[in-house]
Amino acid sequence: MNTLRIPYPDMQSMFRNILLKHGLGKNKAEKCANIFATNSLEGIYSHGVYRFPRFVDYIRKGYIDIGAEPELIHSAGVLEQWNGNLGPGPLNAEICTNRAMEIAEENGMGCLALAETNHWMRGGTYGWQAARKGFVFIGWTNTEANMPAWGAKDRRLGNNPLVFAVPYGEEAIVLDFAMTQFSYGKMEAAQLEGRKLPFPGGFDTGGMLTDDPAAILQSWRALPIGYWKGAGLSLLLDILATILSAGDSTHQLSKREAEYGVSQVFIAIAMKKLSNFPAIDKAISGIIEDLKGSVPEDQEADIRYPGERVLTTRSENLAMGIPVNRKAWEEITLL
Amino acid sequence: MNTLRIPYPDMQSMFRNILLKHGLGKNKAEKCANIFATNSLEGIYSHGVYRFPRFVDYIRKGYIDIGAEPELIHSAGVLEQWNGNLGPGPLNAEICTNRAMEIAEENGMGCLALAETNHWMRGGTYGWQAARKGFVFIGWTNTEANMPAWGAKDRRLGNNPLVFAVPYGEEAIVLDFAMTQFSYGKMEAAQLEGRKLPFPGGFDTGGMLTDDPAAILQSWRALPIGYWKGAGLSLLLDILATILSAGDSTHQLSKREAEYGVSQVFIAIAMKKLSNFPAIDKAISGIIEDLKGSVPEDQEADIRYPGERVLTTRSENLAMGIPVNRKAWEEITLL
Repeated sequence: MNTLRIPYPDMQSMFRNILLKHGLGKNKAEKCANIFATNSLEGIYSHGVYRFPRFVDYIRKGYIDIGAEPELIHSAGVLEQWNGNLGPGPLNAEICTNRAMEIAEENGMGCLALAETNHWMRGGTYGWQAARKGFVFIGWTNTEANMPAWGAKDRRLGNNPLVFAVPYGEEAIVLDFAMTQFSYGKMEAAQLEGRKLPFPGGFDTGGMLTDDPAAILQSWRALPIGYWKGAGLSLLLDILATILSAGDSTHQLSKREAEYGVSQVFIAIAMKKLSNFPAIDKAISGIIEDLKGSVPEDQEADIRYPGERVLTTRSENLAMGIPVNRKAWEEITLL
Repeated sequence: MNTLRIPYPDMQSMFRNILLKHGLGKNKAEKCANIFATNSLEGIYSHGVYRFPRFVDYIRKGYIDIGAEPELIHSAGVLEQWNGNLGPGPLNAEICTNRAMEIAEENGMGCLALAETNHWMRGGTYGWQAARKGFVFIGWTNTEANMPAWGAKDRRLGNNPLVFAVPYGEEAIVLDFAMTQFSYGKMEAAQLEGRKLPFPGGFDTGGMLTDDPAAILQSWRALPIGYWKGAGLSLLLDILATILSAGDSTHQLSKREAEYGVSQVFIAIAMKKLSNFPAIDKAISGIIEDLKGSVPEDQEADIRYPGERVLTTRSENLAMGIPVNRKAWEEITLL
């Protein structure tokens, strides 16, 4: 068997102990371990267990400053500009999400723009965090360049993940998506397994749209979602993250030997401040019921809302343990 | 010659006089005419001159209440819930954009959610309005259903246009895009001219991805941008517009005999409140310069930022008049 099933508490404590060993304080190690283990529990392995070694590597290399705390630089009313001081990205993001919620609690809406932070791993983490406490969340990050502008051949745009989340009962509806149609990780996996992509995912070196992952990995021309539209959205998200946070933009990040010091935005809206608060859950249920009344292409397939799959994956993985490649897990135990 | 060139002032006064004739007050007729004429001047003919007859038709049919004014229903701090009272969509949107800017002026950021309004025509109008006065703008509207959920065959999602705008010198960078890859108008035009779409734009009745506009117009299965991602974004934009405004959602709008009473969101951020305000224009220029340094696929083609084309179209149309199909213009003169 190449796949192990690691119980959530074991994965969490493994991560915590490794982080303690690498110098994080007890509280920070605990919180970081929770985020990496929860991302894995909820099926986002690429930004959980499989990303953890790179996180440790970035600590070793000093790209992540484990002692740093984010700090308020300037308060512009309900919008605050913070600096992440190159601290651990998930901790900075968690703190900023909480602070945006605090501002929203008082003023209806709050926005934090965060400069000089690090990769937040899975953006959906912060959407779930806010939505499960009754807040709408909108947030995004910029990244180094990994996608060409529309009509161009070289990479100038980030994949700049964007998150929208709303509370839904005790759970949440969470959309977390990057501006590239398929991640490089997904394309590499498809190539290894000799599979085509399910839909065209980029251009080959000749500029033709293709579903061949090898051709896209060779050209580095990943498809923006919606063609020119996703390229435009990537640009605007980078501009906004940069100017709101007074931080660095994709073209500046791309000059570094590794991706650190990114810019992020966190917006929270307090639902309980709305006049229609008591009716909101019913309004959302009505929308979801209508969606689920769709005529499916495949009779056997469910029409799902964003984040719905997390619920089943979470309970499966809680019951059976989190699936991890044996070799990858063994390497983690040696960190 | 099938194309006339109508000078901007003539188009504006034609629209104004028709609206006066249909009962709009002087001030409202003037403002509405400005918006329709400017949309045309800036090249968005589909939501300018060619949409004007339907706007007049909706006034005649009573879907648009020309006497109505938007009103504040509930203030939740920097987020205000307004009701559009089924007034003219462009006027309601202009007022709400201004009010979001007012709130932002004082608090850094402001948000208006607007229920029971009407089609705002071109979302970019309000992006330009805010950005040229020094505000970041994020806004969106829901619509009636015109796109299937991912994996479904019948229409349950709106194309829900989303706008991001930032000031750029005296002008603006404005991204204004719908969740369908191609509008039905564009697909109909391609079909009439016997052209394929430049990229796959939907599914045929057999569920295959296709660039044949006729096949998509037959199946009504327009492609969401980024496949499942745009379908998810459409859903979240509808949920947010609905719950923030206490308004109607796509599934409710879709039960009506025509599209009226939509829900919208307007967010403004006051750039001058930011600590880095003096450096922002330079930061944006740096990002745009990097983008324009891209290696183009076609040596002759410019790599453009969203909204850039508006500048050349506007000055061309100001100099030469706004191009309009002769027959369409003659029909307008009879309204």
